[in-house]
Amino acid sequence: MDEFALIRQIIDGLGSVTSRSNVLVGPGDDAAVLRPRQDWDSVASIDTQIVDRHFPRQAPADLIGYRSMMAAISDLAAMAADPNYVLVALALPDSKLCNSEWVGRLVKGIKEAAETSGVVVAGGNLGRGELALTISVHGEVPANAAILRSGAKPGDVLQVSGALGGAAACVRLDQLTVHETLSELQQCYFRPRARLDLVEVVRNSANAAIDVSDGLLQDLGHMLSASNCGAELVADSIPVVLGAVLQDALTGGDDYQLLVSATELLEGFKQIGKVVSDAGLWLDGKPVQAQGFDHFREQ
Amino acid sequence: MDEFALIRQIIDGLGSVTSRSNVLVGPGDDAAVLRPRQDWDSVASIDTQIVDRHFPRQAPADLIGYRSMMAAISDLAAMAADPNYVLVALALPDSKLCNSEWVGRLVKGIKEAAETSGVVVAGGNLGRGELALTISVHGEVPANAAILRSGAKPGDVLQVSGALGGAAACVRLDQLTVHETLSELQQCYFRPRARLDLVEVVRNSANAAIDVSDGLLQDLGHMLSASNCGAELVADSIPVVLGAVLQDALTGGDDYQLLVSATELLEGFKQIGKVVSDAGLWLDGKPVQAQGFDHFREQ
Repeated sequence: MDEFALIRQIIDGLGSVTSRSNVLVGPGDDAAVLRPRQDWDSVASIDTQIVDRHFPRQAPADLIGYRSMMAAISDLAAMAADPNYVLVALALPDSKLCNSEWVGRLVKGIKEAAETSGVVVAGGNLGRGELALTISVHGEVPANAAILRSGAKPGDVLQVSGALGGAAACVRLDQLTVHETLSELQQCYFRPRARLDLVEVVRNSANAAIDVSDGLLQDLGHMLSASNCGAELVADSIPVVLGAVLQDALTGGDDYQLLVSATELLEGFKQIGKVVSDAGLWLDGKPVQAQGFDHFREQ
Repeated sequence: MDEFALIRQIIDGLGSVTSRSNVLVGPGDDAAVLRPRQDWDSVASIDTQIVDRHFPRQAPADLIGYRSMMAAISDLAAMAADPNYVLVALALPDSKLCNSEWVGRLVKGIKEAAETSGVVVAGGNLGRGELALTISVHGEVPANAAILRSGAKPGDVLQVSGALGGAAACVRLDQLTVHETLSELQQCYFRPRARLDLVEVVRNSANAAIDVSDGLLQDLGHMLSASNCGAELVADSIPVVLGAVLQDALTGGDDYQLLVSATELLEGFKQIGKVVSDAGLWLDGKPVQAQGFDHFREQ
């Protein structure tokens, strides 16, 4: 297929999500041009989803696009940033699998995630290679109001924004093959939701925040390490998705709920433990290791 | 190798290029936080370089890193934007080739390009997959001062910032295997220079600009199409790298010189033709097709 025809198809398919009043130049030039919000800071992150590593090759293309977008956008929620725009770099293998119709469905999933999240797709790149989506995500936060991993304080309430372990259970129970409708666990894996609805409460009240993408213990470990603290967790209080088990929640990735440390329990969150001054992590009083999904260790 | 140990090695290797006064939070949190320049617009682009497509697998890792950075950063020069920051998403295959020492050299090349260009590496991502670098690049330009592809006007002087065709000749002459020192053509291919030194003159005086990444005819075609104009080129006036031929300059990519349309010849540029009102492209009076490097058509 002609590269420029395919780019044209993608831009046309994205339609209204490529433009907004703060986007002075959208896709099609050497770069996009955007007008920053006066007195707000920029928040920026980049995330890659690779075939057979982050999603199964045979998954419906719209779900690949949707999930990749949400996984990337989740980092904005974790910083308490308002969503702004994304750039999408797409690597496509030969056109047998990834033909024009497949790309059309991928774009549909990307567009839906953009609409749901309120981000503009301001630009992108198309290359030949192993199927992968790399998405840079960009948000805005009032000056100095970003919430970091490093602000947790002893005595803080540790809390999560929803049930965990669903995506991990979907993988563990070999439910990655999609039929007509998605099971509950498949919803967790393929249709995660970046918790942008909680950005305001996190920004106003959290001391530290991170999204749970590598498993609760690992991401909590990152927060505690950055904050020079420890934590005590209560196993019974950790919300687990129906069909998943506690271990899925503790060590499974891809949930994209928020883990927050704050002086009190915030609206929309559930307490799972508290921050302590001693470095270390305890579950029901027993020491545990921070662990989770490590792309370089697993095989 | 441990993912987080490798990330730590990369961040340590980048050293001083991960911080600057406008970077409030650099690598290591869910996202970077940056302070935008008051009354300037943001310019953003994303570019992927994939093994065996954009660079040879056996190339020295520092050259892969350097070239990938410059190819991406060139888009900022093409918009007349000051460089600001990049996010680097790295996909690495198994550790036989891309071991810790290899990654160290890759990081050295990325760091050198960042220093040369004045960009901060504000964040990144590490994943397992086919070797690829996806780099989102971010610059700043005074409000409404970005130079687009669409501003060329009939009567404008078409001009380029330097000799073309060197990278294409390097590939055509099968010079991609690097020994001790780089030949002139290898310099063109592996050590391109984003023309950030010309940003100010382009911003002040150009009507339209694009970087020559897909070949002169193709990139000129993009500019003319966006500007609803045509152009007449004079073959003898097109500067060609020593060792390359005119065809390399016309249809070869990866030169990363700037192609500019302006009412007069600008300092540091060489006239190659002029813009006309009739749609179409003429070389020494004969009609030619816009053509160049197309990743999806070539095989």
